[in-house]
Amino acid sequence: MDFAAALQSRVSRVEAGIDRLLPPASEPSSRLHGAMRYSMQAGGKRLRPVLVLAACELFESAPRADPLPAAVAVECVHTYSLVHDDLPCMDDDSLRRGRPTAHVAYDEATALLAGDALLTHAFAILSGSYSGDSALAASLVAELAEAAGSRRLIGGQMEDLLAERIPGATPETLRFIHLNKTAAMIEASLAMGGRCGGAPAASVEALRASGRELGLAFQIVDDILDATADTATLGKTAGKDAKAGKATYVSLHGLDAARRIARESSDAAIAGLRRLPGDTGFLAALAESLVNRTH
Amino acid sequence: MDFAAALQSRVSRVEAGIDRLLPPASEPSSRLHGAMRYSMQAGGKRLRPVLVLAACELFESAPRADPLPAAVAVECVHTYSLVHDDLPCMDDDSLRRGRPTAHVAYDEATALLAGDALLTHAFAILSGSYSGDSALAASLVAELAEAAGSRRLIGGQMEDLLAERIPGATPETLRFIHLNKTAAMIEASLAMGGRCGGAPAASVEALRASGRELGLAFQIVDDILDATADTATLGKTAGKDAKAGKATYVSLHGLDAARRIARESSDAAIAGLRRLPGDTGFLAALAESLVNRTH
Repeated sequence: MDFAAALQSRVSRVEAGIDRLLPPASEPSSRLHGAMRYSMQAGGKRLRPVLVLAACELFESAPRADPLPAAVAVECVHTYSLVHDDLPCMDDDSLRRGRPTAHVAYDEATALLAGDALLTHAFAILSGSYSGDSALAASLVAELAEAAGSRRLIGGQMEDLLAERIPGATPETLRFIHLNKTAAMIEASLAMGGRCGGAPAASVEALRASGRELGLAFQIVDDILDATADTATLGKTAGKDAKAGKATYVSLHGLDAARRIARESSDAAIAGLRRLPGDTGFLAALAESLVNRTH
Repeated sequence: MDFAAALQSRVSRVEAGIDRLLPPASEPSSRLHGAMRYSMQAGGKRLRPVLVLAACELFESAPRADPLPAAVAVECVHTYSLVHDDLPCMDDDSLRRGRPTAHVAYDEATALLAGDALLTHAFAILSGSYSGDSALAASLVAELAEAAGSRRLIGGQMEDLLAERIPGATPETLRFIHLNKTAAMIEASLAMGGRCGGAPAASVEALRASGRELGLAFQIVDDILDATADTATLGKTAGKDAKAGKATYVSLHGLDAARRIARESSDAAIAGLRRLPGDTGFLAALAESLVNRTH
């Protein structure tokens, strides 16, 4: 199977998992459940959940548990963070994945609550779907809560916001933001996939280390695309960073250096992944595709 | 020990637990951690965490685990829900527990993120503090995620918001809102305390059933106080419901009937609690104090 087909089959599995594991929109509060589904069904690359599945596959001769619920939980957290990030008091963005953002399609309060509910639901999925293996359930909850918490994802978003308000962010600050706002959830995706696969602790650590490099590369590419691509290609507003006077790898280091750093990080990630057991071909190709993407 | 002293000793234990289990404000992002602590240290009755401790005490001859982390986790979720509920796009309230609300003391974006971080941290506390008993950890996560999720707490808040926009809420709608917006977390507090105490499944169910009645009584008393007390006594804006034209037990049933329904629910809760094993005196007195409170 070529990479595109292999990717598509995993994306389809994730989409089906999302549909199965989210409350039906017919159930009260139907407005809330409708908004949760609207946000989750907006498409997107499904990068993080596919990373969960792909990391689990490395250990597939004896997977410990089905990684799909963990993949959906990760996507719930990622989507909630986008919904809240798009709110008027944050980035105030009206377009996401080519569609109106949740607070535009519904309203601010509904988007706020749908985000809250998606975050909470991620933990309900983990505790519910892995109740037969409570040690795994507890470790997945710990992994996700840590990555999404105040020391990582939310801390990165807070510092990102402060950096927009106070110009002159240093390269160190920018690295802190990228490592926490973006890399944390990519690390957690790989580590959670490994845990579902029954990976030994050393492999979980190796997955996390590769995720860190991959996450950094991914966010630098995001900076590059914001500076070079157009809104129609991106499916979200392009040129936002420069307009906001926001420090990015492009503004701090220049386009060529940003491309080089992204390449170095992604090479480090891929080299790390290739040292893992099992067939690492798909995972390495996926990492490669993230740095070469055009949207 | 009289009730007031017994209550105060448990509240002090909760305050110490909060201080110990929240990230220090000195740790980056310090603005975010400062806002989390500001919101959590605003005081309040600490009702829910004290219910966790009190329910655990019923089984104290052989407690399964220290209930304090579970108590703090519950308070994190309760506080996050208040922080988000106070935001301009929701209730737009500037006063809470006699102090400026988080988005007034900081700003909207910081309050949003601090709420997100508190919700996430609740699950980090549960998975971290009970890692030695992963079956307990997973059951506490499931209990809290269910109570705080789209079918209960957030669903109740969504319907509450819709009821404010569309006048003419039925008694059934109002009951749905109260049972989910308020009772769900009180049920979960008692059930989680019971689980930490090692309660058998039937006792956990009995705790949850009493929590349901207690939560209903508590919210009806809230409605009554909003209609009858003043802002200085409440420590939050009084008379909001009538001003907003919001359906409450007072507006739908009248003051006398609202008082009677609150009394009936609280009697049912107390009778249920008294049937539990152990010394139920403190828990019953606590339930009693909630219906007789003046703020």
